[in-house]
Amino acid sequence: MKILVDTMGSDKGSHALVTGAMNAATKWEFEPILVGDEQEITNVISEGNWKIKPQIIGLNEVISNDESPTLAIRRKKDSSMVKALELLRDGHADGMVSAGSTGALLAGGMLILKRINGLKRAALTSIYPTTKGMSLLVDAGANVELTPETLTQFAIMASIYYSNTFNITNPRVALVNVGTEKGKGHSFAQETYGLLEKSPVNFIGNIEAREIPFGGSDIIVCDGFTGNIILKLTEGMALAMVYRVKKAVMSSFISKVGALLIKPALTKMKKDLDYREYGGVPLLGLTAPVFKAHGSSDDYAVENAIGRLIDFIKADVIKQLEVEIKGE
Amino acid sequence: MKILVDTMGSDKGSHALVTGAMNAATKWEFEPILVGDEQEITNVISEGNWKIKPQIIGLNEVISNDESPTLAIRRKKDSSMVKALELLRDGHADGMVSAGSTGALLAGGMLILKRINGLKRAALTSIYPTTKGMSLLVDAGANVELTPETLTQFAIMASIYYSNTFNITNPRVALVNVGTEKGKGHSFAQETYGLLEKSPVNFIGNIEAREIPFGGSDIIVCDGFTGNIILKLTEGMALAMVYRVKKAVMSSFISKVGALLIKPALTKMKKDLDYREYGGVPLLGLTAPVFKAHGSSDDYAVENAIGRLIDFIKADVIKQLEVEIKGE
Repeated sequence: MKILVDTMGSDKGSHALVTGAMNAATKWEFEPILVGDEQEITNVISEGNWKIKPQIIGLNEVISNDESPTLAIRRKKDSSMVKALELLRDGHADGMVSAGSTGALLAGGMLILKRINGLKRAALTSIYPTTKGMSLLVDAGANVELTPETLTQFAIMASIYYSNTFNITNPRVALVNVGTEKGKGHSFAQETYGLLEKSPVNFIGNIEAREIPFGGSDIIVCDGFTGNIILKLTEGMALAMVYRVKKAVMSSFISKVGALLIKPALTKMKKDLDYREYGGVPLLGLTAPVFKAHGSSDDYAVENAIGRLIDFIKADVIKQLEVEIKGE
Repeated sequence: MKILVDTMGSDKGSHALVTGAMNAATKWEFEPILVGDEQEITNVISEGNWKIKPQIIGLNEVISNDESPTLAIRRKKDSSMVKALELLRDGHADGMVSAGSTGALLAGGMLILKRINGLKRAALTSIYPTTKGMSLLVDAGANVELTPETLTQFAIMASIYYSNTFNITNPRVALVNVGTEKGKGHSFAQETYGLLEKSPVNFIGNIEAREIPFGGSDIIVCDGFTGNIILKLTEGMALAMVYRVKKAVMSSFISKVGALLIKPALTKMKKDLDYREYGGVPLLGLTAPVFKAHGSSDDYAVENAIGRLIDFIKADVIKQLEVEIKGE
């Protein structure tokens, strides 16, 4: 198996991408193709102690998060992201991981790799840690404006991916809405509800945002605008709650002692909320496997993202998606 | 001053409404008009020790949260909510508080009281506790579908109300969006951005959801669908974080001891997050003062809601809104 790793465009520089890729290649025995700044890649490799020799494709144009995704993909032909997507398209590898601009990766995926037949858009998913385990949110912010038909296709794809990843048959699919009853919400939500009812997924109805952190559904379905709000507010609330607890606890000597005693327990809790454990998510709807790792991924997160990608390739999830979308 | 209190339709029954109203009337010396189940009201009054004698208007039809708001208002002419709104319209009182169905109160407000000239809809606001203090979110879920023009009017009204309530000139107004840069988001967000720029409010641009819990803006502007998601997810995340911390802490003896030591500090923190301290919010855009208290308000929350209503009446906020909306 050959896996392309776009080593550029991450918040933490090439180091995490190269190290994560080399550790993963050692663990799962695939051939890594590292695409990015040749000097930087060579430096990291020479410092490490890996037996595997990676293929290196030197390119030093980088796409940043601030650029218009579509323009960047069209103009920056010498960027590591465009090059990796082209190599994937031309069959030089079985899959690819990038920690670069999400928008550019999605735009590039759609322009260079093409979409599965019958799909208008590709979906961005996000793993959402709940008190019960892991939910999968779709769309995670890439498609801020989309039709009920497209969102229903996203729900079908997310359902298949979730089944494969967590080994759960018929995961519970719910639509984010302002109330649980049918007929609630704006016309977009009402139409999507009707389509999800008729779709092959295990649709359990609407979910109110209050239930999302408690794992009220396995698949959380919403437009990308709402998805972005949910993900960022969840992050902000977690940080704000920790800030509030710290401030409250630091207000007296006795509670400071108490805080010391509960610290190990809280460290374990933080691990449950850590995106690094999961690593990365696929762009669903493309004709080849592309995984997005978090922009601030360290080497451990990159390694896990590659592990997920390998599972995705082995299960031939794309074939399953093609069958289901075609049959719809 | 005369204040109408709709004693029905709350989750906790008449007791909290009657007790809260009587305590408030004792504290601020107004004439309470209690509208609801006469027997229940009389029972609570006879058990209490108040010097003030309230006016009681006996009615026992109630509007529940499950009904279609507009239909309920049209059909249930003998409900306490419809009666109180009619009495307010006909000048028998200076303002009104209800803890009943939010949707019905808004529909009733628009049908019975009418809107300020130039407004298409009335806004529901919600107080949002942040690590810095209090923000005000508009629309809080009543208007899931609305135009950029209407949302801009809501932002103007919220800004005026915030200034009056927290004594802050030019509160910072931000639009909830998927990124901070102008041009981000769906067309609704882009159009609203353009209108807010030209409006008289102190518009500071987009706010990402991550910054909301940290008080990134004083006024949080979004459509009611997004507002509902933000409010309910905030509640769910606060509960889920407390659940996670408890679970983590209960896993060892030492951390259990630690938990006992930090308990008083956490109790104080919970008070900061308590909606009861604020009590209630106005429906903005109606021609008379109507306050909504939380459905699960206890007597303390009801008393605070009435306190806010009195401030609202004294400052003649509606006059200020009329001037600003007309001048626009």
